[in-house]
Amino acid sequence: MNRSRVFLRLFSNFQRQQYSSGKAQFKSKDGNYMKFAFIGTAAASTIGLLGARIIKADFSGDELKVKDLEKLPLYSLDEVKKHGKSAERIWVTYKDGVYDVTDFVSMHPGGNKILLAAGASVDPYWALYSQHKTAEVLEILEQYRIGRLDAKDVPKQEVDAFSNDPVRHPALLVRNAKPFNAESPPSLLTDHFYTPNDLFFVRNHLPVPVIDVEKHELEVEAFDGKIVKLNMEEIRKKYKAYTIGSVVQCAGNRRADMNSFKKVQGLMWEGTAISNAEWTGPRLRDILIDAGIDINDPKLKHVHFEGADVDPTGTPYGASIPFEKAIRDEVIVAYKMNGEDIPRDHGAPLRVVVPGNVGARQVKWLKKVIVSDVESSSHWQQKDYRAFSPAVQLGDELKWDRVPSIQEYPVQCAICVPEPNTKVDRDDGTVSVSGYAWSGGGRGIIRIEISVDGGQSWKSVEMEQEKNQDLEHMYAWTLFHTEVEIPKDVEKFEIIVKAVDRAYNTQPETAAGIWNVRGLIHNAWHKVPIIVN
Amino acid sequence: MNRSRVFLRLFSNFQRQQYSSGKAQFKSKDGNYMKFAFIGTAAASTIGLLGARIIKADFSGDELKVKDLEKLPLYSLDEVKKHGKSAERIWVTYKDGVYDVTDFVSMHPGGNKILLAAGASVDPYWALYSQHKTAEVLEILEQYRIGRLDAKDVPKQEVDAFSNDPVRHPALLVRNAKPFNAESPPSLLTDHFYTPNDLFFVRNHLPVPVIDVEKHELEVEAFDGKIVKLNMEEIRKKYKAYTIGSVVQCAGNRRADMNSFKKVQGLMWEGTAISNAEWTGPRLRDILIDAGIDINDPKLKHVHFEGADVDPTGTPYGASIPFEKAIRDEVIVAYKMNGEDIPRDHGAPLRVVVPGNVGARQVKWLKKVIVSDVESSSHWQQKDYRAFSPAVQLGDELKWDRVPSIQEYPVQCAICVPEPNTKVDRDDGTVSVSGYAWSGGGRGIIRIEISVDGGQSWKSVEMEQEKNQDLEHMYAWTLFHTEVEIPKDVEKFEIIVKAVDRAYNTQPETAAGIWNVRGLIHNAWHKVPIIVN
Repeated sequence: MNRSRVFLRLFSNFQRQQYSSGKAQFKSKDGNYMKFAFIGTAAASTIGLLGARIIKADFSGDELKVKDLEKLPLYSLDEVKKHGKSAERIWVTYKDGVYDVTDFVSMHPGGNKILLAAGASVDPYWALYSQHKTAEVLEILEQYRIGRLDAKDVPKQEVDAFSNDPVRHPALLVRNAKPFNAESPPSLLTDHFYTPNDLFFVRNHLPVPVIDVEKHELEVEAFDGKIVKLNMEEIRKKYKAYTIGSVVQCAGNRRADMNSFKKVQGLMWEGTAISNAEWTGPRLRDILIDAGIDINDPKLKHVHFEGADVDPTGTPYGASIPFEKAIRDEVIVAYKMNGEDIPRDHGAPLRVVVPGNVGARQVKWLKKVIVSDVESSSHWQQKDYRAFSPAVQLGDELKWDRVPSIQEYPVQCAICVPEPNTKVDRDDGTVSVSGYAWSGGGRGIIRIEISVDGGQSWKSVEMEQEKNQDLEHMYAWTLFHTEVEIPKDVEKFEIIVKAVDRAYNTQPETAAGIWNVRGLIHNAWHKVPIIVN
Repeated sequence: MNRSRVFLRLFSNFQRQQYSSGKAQFKSKDGNYMKFAFIGTAAASTIGLLGARIIKADFSGDELKVKDLEKLPLYSLDEVKKHGKSAERIWVTYKDGVYDVTDFVSMHPGGNKILLAAGASVDPYWALYSQHKTAEVLEILEQYRIGRLDAKDVPKQEVDAFSNDPVRHPALLVRNAKPFNAESPPSLLTDHFYTPNDLFFVRNHLPVPVIDVEKHELEVEAFDGKIVKLNMEEIRKKYKAYTIGSVVQCAGNRRADMNSFKKVQGLMWEGTAISNAEWTGPRLRDILIDAGIDINDPKLKHVHFEGADVDPTGTPYGASIPFEKAIRDEVIVAYKMNGEDIPRDHGAPLRVVVPGNVGARQVKWLKKVIVSDVESSSHWQQKDYRAFSPAVQLGDELKWDRVPSIQEYPVQCAICVPEPNTKVDRDDGTVSVSGYAWSGGGRGIIRIEISVDGGQSWKSVEMEQEKNQDLEHMYAWTLFHTEVEIPKDVEKFEIIVKAVDRAYNTQPETAAGIWNVRGLIHNAWHKVPIIVN
């Protein structure tokens, strides 16, 4: 009743630190001009995308107009080393360039990770985070150029850390080659209620690890640090296996659409960074109990997951989920995907499946499970996959601790067929439209509606759903296939789709209220323009 | 993987049955003209509301221009009785009128309840559902007039079923007197994190029952029909009591705002049919277990609640929640509200508190708890509190079984202060703004943002939250109190507010995608126009 019982949480506006902002044109290799607003951050994995056409960005720094190199001083690597992470000024090298990035550190979207290269070369890191190798990022880097690196110290050509990646299906739409990130082909996605493994979208943060399945062990770490190890045979035989239909959706799905509203950072996913599979494996809960963990211990607040995929420092991909979620029936440690052994791109031999949560928490190549009183300290838990306020602009300092990590997803719905700007024949009368809807937390989709008059009137469509899941536990997606009447007397129109979930959550009309600098969780009404012949 | 594993759910457009639609003007008692679009339903509880002004609708049929009465035949009650619910034509009487309502039955928003009066008088029912006594409803009724009732059979003045209702605080904003429905005063609501009992909004469906607290018994009915009875002393002493801060929000909160977008049916709540209290009592789970119910029995899917408040047929108010929710820690059978015995208007002596769910399920004057394999068959579970598609229009047949009952609420946020059209002085520089945000399912509010430029730019505001509740279990609301800068060079502007919940669910910009015929769960951006002097 009184104020002393409550407290104030401050999620204020973030102070803006405008820098390196501007506009320019770059000529891409195929001769087309692309307009970029400099995004002002070195970790922006920008694959320029205009309309539906994908432009692979793979520029080398040499193509950029840089400072008059001859006039800049020459440094040896020993001199660069004096400017390590504890120095007053932080230097790094890239190829034969020397850069003072002191003023950039706080703006690096990858956070303090940049300091790993302080006083040294960024080359081995960029070899793994190839999203740096874009015209925009290199342009920003050049602003910090202070000199040239002695030729004897310039790193040799790096080994391709991705040479052991698997062969992929040619229909996948590649958004980034290394690490591999690719969407499911929209024209095929809604043909299957459960996405065939080969067409399941791929979101890798690092090279696909090479794992000897029969030697692979899952480590389960209790709160006291005690570790229990389980090999694959034990995981297959010791526990009852459950099968659950569950969606994996990237937090960046539909980022390109948000980017067209207003420029954002990140891999330019269109609308099919989402797929649906049947996963099979033991409940995480059963494994935790078997490892001697008291699941009623109130100290246990989170469960961390670590993958076998590692970055150049040996740090594995990691994430965590609330303990309360981890012990729910639906959370499983899967070894099968659609009845087959999980393919390498999807986490072979083990992946934690966290139905209703964002993809980033469903750690692939699962190597370690740790119960804890705190969230994972992983970069991907703390400095990524959090959606800021629209008040935070590109170039602002990102105060990650002010925003909670994304876990459950909000309601989402999008059209897969037809493609934007499809030409239809008026005489056909109708257009075939198909797509998907899904919401987090097991909240089933109760309704999908389509409008062809800008949202003034709507029509509900028939829905295809998993019969074994009720509206309170619907982790698989909902598909729709319908015929939409071509409106009279128009030369073009938009097909708009939106859904409602079990808690009557809905989607916003536009990105106006949800735009965020990292382009995460775009779930505004999906609109597909159609041309009438 | 294959289609046979899934099935199709059809939530198609509802066939439109247009009828009795039109526009007319009625003169209210204070001489103002009110424009009504006939809503085409006799149960519409319409309290006309223009802007912020409340016009109490309490017309008598005599004021309406009706058919030339003398020319209509005279019927006795015996003749009327021949037209009961099994007859080919259904007749009812109201005062001295006889009506053939056969063609109206399927359109009655209260569903089959209208048949209770078949072959008889609606007067005793309308005495309890005074929302019928509006110009609009009476006008519709007159369209079905077929005769006059013999004077000897005209019902005498009914007893006032509401004469035992409690005295209320004068600050409450009465939206309907009988049954009593009143909003909290917005100017006072955000002054208290926990709403004082006297100012807590009231949503009664029936007269407040007269209960002898010391004789009151809670009946708990198992699946086999076995009943355990608990008196108040047992409930207070036998079980451990828990206290939880939890919001009650009417599904119709902000209906007036949706109505201003496009006409809807129902009590015209503005933005304060919501309050927040600390509730104390045993966990429902503990009571169920103590009554011998096996909470792991997979047959148990729902828990029904019945109140001591009854309609003219003796049917109590009733509702149900999913069993899985009922056995969660937060669901309690409360006997205290903000540390005091629950007041009569709020359910004395017992009310089930279902944190995170809509108010309609949090049954007051709790008399009976029944575990079941199916939802409650109560009118309020089956024929009310379900939000239709915007494709369903006023006058359409309402296919209630096509839409799930509202349980968890979506994210909501509204401004309480200032009032709409408040005049502010430019020299003041800022306007003080306060309001609330809340979301269902325990999903805490992670952000509240304000815009004064139509949603083009936003500012996050400081939030007041319950310190004992984390973002995964936040059942109390979030308040905000902030100063908003008056924009330059404008004579008027709108303050817009919206919130984001833990699952990153957001609010739609307008009612365009969420409008529904019953005006339920309006959670579009809340906009308050301000005039600058």
